[in-house]
Amino acid sequence: MCELLGMECNVPDRHRLLLRWPWPRAAAAPVTTPMAGAWRSTRARRPGCSSSRAAAAASPLARFVRDHPIKTLLAVAHVRKRTRGPVSLVNTHPFVRELWGRQFVFAHNGTIKGARRLTLGRFRPVGTTDSEHAFCALLGAVAHEFDRYPASPTALAEAVAAHGARIGRGGTFNFLMADGRQLIARCSTRLHHIIRQAPFARATLADEDLAVDFAAVTTPRDSRRGGRDLAADPR
Amino acid sequence: MCELLGMECNVPDRHRLLLRWPWPRAAAAPVTTPMAGAWRSTRARRPGCSSSRAAAAASPLARFVRDHPIKTLLAVAHVRKRTRGPVSLVNTHPFVRELWGRQFVFAHNGTIKGARRLTLGRFRPVGTTDSEHAFCALLGAVAHEFDRYPASPTALAEAVAAHGARIGRGGTFNFLMADGRQLIARCSTRLHHIIRQAPFARATLADEDLAVDFAAVTTPRDSRRGGRDLAADPR
Repeated sequence: MCELLGMECNVPDRHRLLLRWPWPRAAAAPVTTPMAGAWRSTRARRPGCSSSRAAAAASPLARFVRDHPIKTLLAVAHVRKRTRGPVSLVNTHPFVRELWGRQFVFAHNGTIKGARRLTLGRFRPVGTTDSEHAFCALLGAVAHEFDRYPASPTALAEAVAAHGARIGRGGTFNFLMADGRQLIARCSTRLHHIIRQAPFARATLADEDLAVDFAAVTTPRDSRRGGRDLAADPR
Repeated sequence: MCELLGMECNVPDRHRLLLRWPWPRAAAAPVTTPMAGAWRSTRARRPGCSSSRAAAAASPLARFVRDHPIKTLLAVAHVRKRTRGPVSLVNTHPFVRELWGRQFVFAHNGTIKGARRLTLGRFRPVGTTDSEHAFCALLGAVAHEFDRYPASPTALAEAVAAHGARIGRGGTFNFLMADGRQLIARCSTRLHHIIRQAPFARATLADEDLAVDFAAVTTPRDSRRGGRDLAADPR
């Protein structure tokens, strides 16, 4: 099973805790790939991306990302247990395409039925996964609908939701899509989300012997929005 | 002055020597950015990319790439001394866009006159450099000309040369463009190229105390095509 993690903050965070997330489980998974797309600021239009086809726990690049956390407002991470397509860099999430002068990053969990039969627009898959086919179909449909980045972020999210429902029909289409301005999460099966804000408390990772006292590393105006990074949260 | 390096091999090479290339000069340059796009095989359609906005000599990512060289048939590297646009990841070469289901990588040396007035097609710049504007105009023109990847690689190279001449008119438009199948180098001012093939000899880097005996690390059927990586070559 793939796992996805998305995080948005109102002030840049180093993600020290969050980027520890995939590794312990990845060590046990037979085939995994780690990934982080991160934006330095909300104005940034291109993510800093690191991808590796190697098993996350053994990957020098994964270790590098963990040891050199990027300070960012928005991050997307993906650990893949291969179900479709060979293990290769070309099939490693997230997939990235430029639209309206912004880079869109997409990571998927699940399986799309009939992905090869989806109508593609201007975006073509480079690899062989159903995930990238679905992303190309989704972004192509959105590009067809809007000439430029919609003035209302809600309009983009609603279009993604509508096309996501159509594309994911009959399959499992959990995904994270981000462009540095916003992070869109679609849920077919399971989505855990949490809003961390003042007053901050102490949190402990379920998988690993690591705890962070958020009160010590934040200010009262910070707000962290994240996924299933912490299994136990005392707030 | 930016510097570009491209390399093609007939068997995958680890680029141990070539990836040492930008660092010594980068240490002296005030603002530099390193980059490597590399493909694992000619069939690969997506490069493994590493970009950093940090000065190459001080960048942990540059050190990582140097210490973990990728085994690849084709590599593009770029060190930038900023002349246009702010120093940011978004302005870091190379720029990447998908066309016909392949990722095209582009790195530029020089300055394009009137880049903002170039006609853009489906590709839009994400950053603010003249280089990315020129790349979007170039790839858009090629996309307009061919519905799919041209059956003849020469046809693609000739189209890139023709549009490159038009776009670079009056400016300096040295660039490397690669899609994993082929590496295209356009020269406005200076291009150094070398074909390394059996019988291989010993070569020494001009900038750094490093020598490689190619005869010891190759087989008679190997062939390495590279740029100005070695100032002194005894062959």
